[in-house]
Amino acid sequence: MCVFCKILQGEIPCFKVYEDADTLAFLDIGPFEKGHTLVIPRRHGELLTDLTEEEAATLGVVTRRIGGLLMERLPCDGFNVMQNNGACASQVVPHVHFHVVPRWSGRDINWQSIKYDSTEEMAALAERLRG
Amino acid sequence: MCVFCKILQGEIPCFKVYEDADTLAFLDIGPFEKGHTLVIPRRHGELLTDLTEEEAATLGVVTRRIGGLLMERLPCDGFNVMQNNGACASQVVPHVHFHVVPRWSGRDINWQSIKYDSTEEMAALAERLRG
Repeated sequence: MCVFCKILQGEIPCFKVYEDADTLAFLDIGPFEKGHTLVIPRRHGELLTDLTEEEAATLGVVTRRIGGLLMERLPCDGFNVMQNNGACASQVVPHVHFHVVPRWSGRDINWQSIKYDSTEEMAALAERLRG
Repeated sequence: MCVFCKILQGEIPCFKVYEDADTLAFLDIGPFEKGHTLVIPRRHGELLTDLTEEEAATLGVVTRRIGGLLMERLPCDGFNVMQNNGACASQVVPHVHFHVVPRWSGRDINWQSIKYDSTEEMAALAERLRG
């Protein structure tokens, strides 16, 4: 079972930002910026093209919502959406996931994982984003 | 009027890969890899969060379709999806657009624009992708 399926089943903990019947969004533990959130479908699929059109539509909706949460509640000035398909495209976990990365004016990003100071910091941030 | 609205109105030409009532997909003229396609909504909106949920859903569906076209008809081994929101997130054209970038095993990418050899090459590639 892949690591995201284990998160979905509760075998591995995560800091939830949003969930519904089809989708889970949670904080990336190795974020490019604090607040970096992953959006995944509950049904396992490796590539975006392995999902149904309905599932792809749902991910579009939820990714938009997560961008809105980051903009309003971090807050941030903008955000990047990224989704990699295949090892050749730098996909590491073989379960479809959209990265939503907050950005700020006047602040560059180096696309390297950073660390949270503590699990308490992650918990507080996820709670703020959930609202 | 933004450059993508001008493309949508036919004032600026493009090499179409796909279109429907709500969406247009066309070859990026400064691609990271040949076949790099942009997916845009017909209605102007700057950020993903400026779109309706229905529009975000449609973009999710069409982005998946474009990924499928690249995989089957270029063909390629994988693809990256990217969508930038705000100048601070490297958004250049202020009209929502999803980049769909083909990738191949054993071939790195340097995320710099490359050039097509000719407009004939672009026309032939767009025709191949349209099928």
